[in-house]
Amino acid sequence: MPANKQFLLDSRPKGEASASNFRMVTSETPPLKDGEVLVRHHYLSLDPYMRGRMDEARSYATPQPLGEVMIGGTVGEVVESRSPKFRAGDKVVGMGGWQEYSVVATDQPGTLRKVDTTHVPISHYLGAVGMPGVTAWYGLMKIIEPKAGQTIAVSAASGAVGSALGTLAKTHGCRAVGIAGGPEKCRYVTEELGFDACVDYKQHGDALSLSKALKEACPNGIDGYFENVGGMVMDAVMLRMNDFGRMAVCGMIAGYDGKPVPMSYPQVILRSRLKVQGFIVSEHPEVWQQALLELGALVGTGKLRPRESVAQGLESAPEAFLGMLKGRNFGKQLVKLA
Amino acid sequence: MPANKQFLLDSRPKGEASASNFRMVTSETPPLKDGEVLVRHHYLSLDPYMRGRMDEARSYATPQPLGEVMIGGTVGEVVESRSPKFRAGDKVVGMGGWQEYSVVATDQPGTLRKVDTTHVPISHYLGAVGMPGVTAWYGLMKIIEPKAGQTIAVSAASGAVGSALGTLAKTHGCRAVGIAGGPEKCRYVTEELGFDACVDYKQHGDALSLSKALKEACPNGIDGYFENVGGMVMDAVMLRMNDFGRMAVCGMIAGYDGKPVPMSYPQVILRSRLKVQGFIVSEHPEVWQQALLELGALVGTGKLRPRESVAQGLESAPEAFLGMLKGRNFGKQLVKLA
Repeated sequence: MPANKQFLLDSRPKGEASASNFRMVTSETPPLKDGEVLVRHHYLSLDPYMRGRMDEARSYATPQPLGEVMIGGTVGEVVESRSPKFRAGDKVVGMGGWQEYSVVATDQPGTLRKVDTTHVPISHYLGAVGMPGVTAWYGLMKIIEPKAGQTIAVSAASGAVGSALGTLAKTHGCRAVGIAGGPEKCRYVTEELGFDACVDYKQHGDALSLSKALKEACPNGIDGYFENVGGMVMDAVMLRMNDFGRMAVCGMIAGYDGKPVPMSYPQVILRSRLKVQGFIVSEHPEVWQQALLELGALVGTGKLRPRESVAQGLESAPEAFLGMLKGRNFGKQLVKLA
Repeated sequence: MPANKQFLLDSRPKGEASASNFRMVTSETPPLKDGEVLVRHHYLSLDPYMRGRMDEARSYATPQPLGEVMIGGTVGEVVESRSPKFRAGDKVVGMGGWQEYSVVATDQPGTLRKVDTTHVPISHYLGAVGMPGVTAWYGLMKIIEPKAGQTIAVSAASGAVGSALGTLAKTHGCRAVGIAGGPEKCRYVTEELGFDACVDYKQHGDALSLSKALKEACPNGIDGYFENVGGMVMDAVMLRMNDFGRMAVCGMIAGYDGKPVPMSYPQVILRSRLKVQGFIVSEHPEVWQQALLELGALVGTGKLRPRESVAQGLESAPEAFLGMLKGRNFGKQLVKLA
């Protein structure tokens, strides 16, 4: 059995998360039992939701237990199988965690899924054709419910969720407007992803200034907004929402470190008769098949060209994760493991 | 033609509204043209939305013009008619404004409606069997969508909207929990309106303290919340919302004076996957008939016994209005005009 490097959650953050919250260990992968497969991970996905799991506090999910392997999505290859459902060589996506190998009991539905890497690079099954892509799809189709001609905005637009959101909005005949940090990301959002406009929030010191810039980018206001960050960006967008606008709330990165991040203008919810709705994509398994089909087609035909930030080797995972929480990644943050 | 005392909006408030924003004048009601009726107002309704209309700022409605009669709902009696639709003696509800008489062109649909005062006192057509009642009905039935056994909370529970909301929630098999200011209002809410519990927000200095009291009143959490006030009360309730809870946002009194009143815990929207939705009942004419039917039955059968604060004479309207904005009324705030 191969040696398996792993990252455990060693302590819970007090305020901001730090590398010292994680501890690397090496173990031997256990021998397979009947029904199990051994997967060698090619990529580990790093996602904002992980920060929430690190806390003891009530969240929508059970906390990550201390001393156990950090939770995380992975893609890789079956290297040994004692399951009739998989054979060595199969490419698979699952929740293998922050480690190089995982042993998976395949009799539980949904733990491991075979993927076709003919037209879609395997890493994209952690991004545009995976959980982040389905997240964008659900928020857009089930909460925002876009209509042709409407303006749809998204924060963290160059990221895995944002890029899929904008591309999907365009396919529905909408004006897609991104919000991202820095000229390089904004250029990518408009030139490579095909958004109609992108506003660099780093050019603005407060919500009112950012809101003015959004007015230029959204001359007809904003009908649908996909919220990935919260805080100042959310405030600025709310001031531009049209009557009967819809806000899908998927992330509040600004608040993950326990600092209170209020919504400054809740009266807009009444004034503009907004619907503001939070969701977690894993609670809506019924949409995954259709969503993945549409997203796979967008990537396979080149209509969606997701960008990735790839850190090398499991050792780099903590720093890459902390950097992502600060927006230092550009596109989907991955760790290459093999 | 009778002399008609009127209140005009004389100036827009800077911050808090004051009596000096209104000016009383006396005019003669003009002679009727064909299709018009003259209505003598028995009661004027005072409602929180009027504060929003006093501002120039963008609101969901056009601002009240300066120098014109203040907008307002009225019930009264037709005293002269040149319309085939009404005859002298008819009891009617309409938007007659802050004045003793109004001349109404009856060819525009919805301007004036005959009401039956056999089982329902006329004043209730401005409250439980009028706009406030339908407001409660819409928020409950179309946004909160109550299920038997769930807990439904409402702020300003002793008011016209709140009392109807709680009574309706009870008829749907829900636990109804009110939030009101002071022991007298709370006693009325539980003993006369039949709510299961009522929390006195004036006993609490901050949202966390109020939230603890709500935990006792709502041992199974809160599934639906009808928001009439905003601010600290909203914050406290949000901390108690159950997963997939619904918040119908109808009022933000706390913010009407232009002071910023942030939402302190917007991350709860994500964490608990809430739906938070603003609405204005006048935009949903399709529900009025059914809602008024149900509300009329509740009042007619004594299941809903709305309370009223009645100020005497048009002269008292500004002070009564300003007092209502500060929560000094007890139940529906009216001005008796005849």
